[in-house]
Amino acid sequence: MQGTDILITNDDGIQSEGLTALKDALSSLGRVTVVAPDREQSTTSHAITLHRPLRVEEVAHRCFSVDGTPADCVNLSINGILKGKPRILVAGINKGENLGDDVTYSGTVSAAIEGTLIGIPSIAVSLVTRKNFKFEAAAAFAKRLVEQVLKHGLPDNTLLNVNVPNLAEQEIKGVEITCQGKRIYGDAIVEKVDPRGKKYYWIGGDQLGYRDVPGSDFDAVNRKMISVTPLRLDLTGYDAIETLKEWEI
Amino acid sequence: MQGTDILITNDDGIQSEGLTALKDALSSLGRVTVVAPDREQSTTSHAITLHRPLRVEEVAHRCFSVDGTPADCVNLSINGILKGKPRILVAGINKGENLGDDVTYSGTVSAAIEGTLIGIPSIAVSLVTRKNFKFEAAAAFAKRLVEQVLKHGLPDNTLLNVNVPNLAEQEIKGVEITCQGKRIYGDAIVEKVDPRGKKYYWIGGDQLGYRDVPGSDFDAVNRKMISVTPLRLDLTGYDAIETLKEWEI
Repeated sequence: MQGTDILITNDDGIQSEGLTALKDALSSLGRVTVVAPDREQSTTSHAITLHRPLRVEEVAHRCFSVDGTPADCVNLSINGILKGKPRILVAGINKGENLGDDVTYSGTVSAAIEGTLIGIPSIAVSLVTRKNFKFEAAAAFAKRLVEQVLKHGLPDNTLLNVNVPNLAEQEIKGVEITCQGKRIYGDAIVEKVDPRGKKYYWIGGDQLGYRDVPGSDFDAVNRKMISVTPLRLDLTGYDAIETLKEWEI
Repeated sequence: MQGTDILITNDDGIQSEGLTALKDALSSLGRVTVVAPDREQSTTSHAITLHRPLRVEEVAHRCFSVDGTPADCVNLSINGILKGKPRILVAGINKGENLGDDVTYSGTVSAAIEGTLIGIPSIAVSLVTRKNFKFEAAAAFAKRLVEQVLKHGLPDNTLLNVNVPNLAEQEIKGVEITCQGKRIYGDAIVEKVDPRGKKYYWIGGDQLGYRDVPGSDFDAVNRKMISVTPLRLDLTGYDAIETLKEWEI
């Protein structure tokens, strides 16, 4: 992959307009390669496929579709398809926010986790809406942020999780470096009966909102700011270590 | 679910001996309910199923099988099947370690993440081996740890990730509270050709080992200690915030 600078992927699938918007925005910065799931893979988290082989199709020039998860796409890109490391990985533009605790479910964020694990500066970019997607501001910001990451690098084992309000560029108030907010989850499970009289369940994903944490990702996007949250791979709860040492185990 | 104290799940599937060993060990502490995937779901991470309904079968008394991921099992248990919160959730005993950066791939750890998100003290228990599983020490330790968690509670938004060496109880040197270690991943992708001449790829999962971090989970299990790592849901890289604020974005 000599000369290739920028790898992009997503979890909405290779046909997503968010991916195309990202590709178009970044193409002036270097050679862009797309490696993305062949279908929607939202909420697949950091799942990786080890129990079956993966298929890759070159569906257009430097544009590959994979029958796997976002993490599979990143792993396969770097270790299999492209035989080399890009300078940067960008996942998105996701059709839907990845704020607060939702990051652990997100295929978009997990693609950036996989890139970071492999040692590539990685960014996840999401649009805060579920409909009437306006990709322009997110695409333009992704370009500016990529330029900054290429200039400064990223701290070790840290990725950037970006959430952009679904507004026109001139309506966005600015950029804020944030912490991960706290989602309040609902408990909606839909219980129904199928045509053969058998029960089934559907996880509702009901979201009751979020706790009001100043400086959080939720807080920033509510004030029409673009939120940039540094996320780290080390999940250790260092604060808890001393407490646990006092237990009788 | 009045009266039920303990919910257990896993990612190896409901037929796993690790799950049975855990159930047997914890049954003297309270009423145990098992809700586990109907088949192996390793490396599914924190994936949750939103695009299709889920089926639940009561395969034995207080023992439910779900055609979904470990996170689905936990969500469905608490919000659908059992109509109430257990006092504690234990995931395992996993047939294989969940150390260092591997935690982000792990279905076992993600079950404990889901429990923690819902507000239940949660523990993931894994056995450090891929064969000749000796569950006795891990099961006995899980029981001791559950007693401690029921007594002390857990810090908010924090779960425990436990890894137990595959040794007889008397060979284990003790228990250590650890930090998450750092895996060094390989880059093995197996590229092959199918009977119809078409290429396919297989992610190798080649593991080159880990960095020597004193006090880490890897370090502890290598010294024949049981490793207990507190993991937090807040992934924010707070150290990086000030650095990023200086960027021109």
